[in-house]
Amino acid sequence: MIIDPATTPRGELHSLMIRCIAPRPIAWVSTMSRDGITNLAPFSYFNGVSSDPPALLFVASRHDTGHKKDTLLNIEATGHFVVNVVPESLAEAMNITATEYPHGVSEFEKAGLTPAPAERVSAPRLKESPVHFECELYETMHVGVDGAGGGTIVVGRIVLIHIDDSILKDGKVDYELYHPIGRLGGMEYTRTRDRFTMVRKKYTPGM
Amino acid sequence: MIIDPATTPRGELHSLMIRCIAPRPIAWVSTMSRDGITNLAPFSYFNGVSSDPPALLFVASRHDTGHKKDTLLNIEATGHFVVNVVPESLAEAMNITATEYPHGVSEFEKAGLTPAPAERVSAPRLKESPVHFECELYETMHVGVDGAGGGTIVVGRIVLIHIDDSILKDGKVDYELYHPIGRLGGMEYTRTRDRFTMVRKKYTPGM
Repeated sequence: MIIDPATTPRGELHSLMIRCIAPRPIAWVSTMSRDGITNLAPFSYFNGVSSDPPALLFVASRHDTGHKKDTLLNIEATGHFVVNVVPESLAEAMNITATEYPHGVSEFEKAGLTPAPAERVSAPRLKESPVHFECELYETMHVGVDGAGGGTIVVGRIVLIHIDDSILKDGKVDYELYHPIGRLGGMEYTRTRDRFTMVRKKYTPGM
Repeated sequence: MIIDPATTPRGELHSLMIRCIAPRPIAWVSTMSRDGITNLAPFSYFNGVSSDPPALLFVASRHDTGHKKDTLLNIEATGHFVVNVVPESLAEAMNITATEYPHGVSEFEKAGLTPAPAERVSAPRLKESPVHFECELYETMHVGVDGAGGGTIVVGRIVLIHIDDSILKDGKVDYELYHPIGRLGGMEYTRTRDRFTMVRKKYTPGM
């Protein structure tokens, strides 16, 4: 099957992309507006960027009307956000925060979750999540016509990382304790219990 | 445990980031230099960006010396690349192409893989992979001091998508036929056979 994006409806293309680009990690992003309203929302166009400088990114999609999501508005206003992770035990709660509530409704409250103060940024951490990346806005890049669809790539400089001792074994994050979930296409998610190991080989002449 | 990136060695931070930001999809990027040498390499800082315009991104990390990887050099020279996906059946071959061979060695040959011509870009497709995104370079953003470490975010406009009929069921990509793998930390990967479904709720007043 060959798909030409130029002649494929946007919704169909989106559905196809998220099915093929998988499994995706989930950034559960917590922010706070200037007037103190907290926000929590999941984003699966998320990944690392660099360890020097320590940086990660996620993409805030834009509505066709150009309307920005609260997460992006809060980050632009304050320059701060926290990326929390999603283990299996928090899947249902994460899904509740994916609902688009009206502006001003706190997803923390709707999902029965607890905001906790961060140390270096104004955005709250999500207490129930075992990993928090406190981030300062490094740069944004909008892909698409400004104000009509597209996605805004948000790059954050990681200024502090919290890891709950409950997922550590000998000082290292252990997947038998962490169990992060990944986003697939449609309504599907993957667990990470079915793992395998491959050693990456270093080049030696004659190889 | 609290980790301050400012006082943590880069390697340790990298190890921690890839363990926590997981599972990550794998972009198996094929390119061709101006003088016709093909290149194939996996990148797990990879994700979608937008379906309108159709775009994806991956991050090409930079060596401390500022040295760019062949993939990035080829994309800058030609403006073209193809993102191929990695099902379980190609895991070992993908791992072979992760070895840093000297400049000029084709990973296709080393891994026993077959380049196939693309339709809209000069970069080759990887015949054995079931999904190919033909991409034109949209923009790059370097994160970090130019020429010394950091990562270059490469955003590609998707101009054509090929999906092998072998992973389709009723015209849709089926995970029971596709089986993409995800990258975790250390030497670990996850399969995507252990899945679950959650329906995202639409907001209704009173919810």
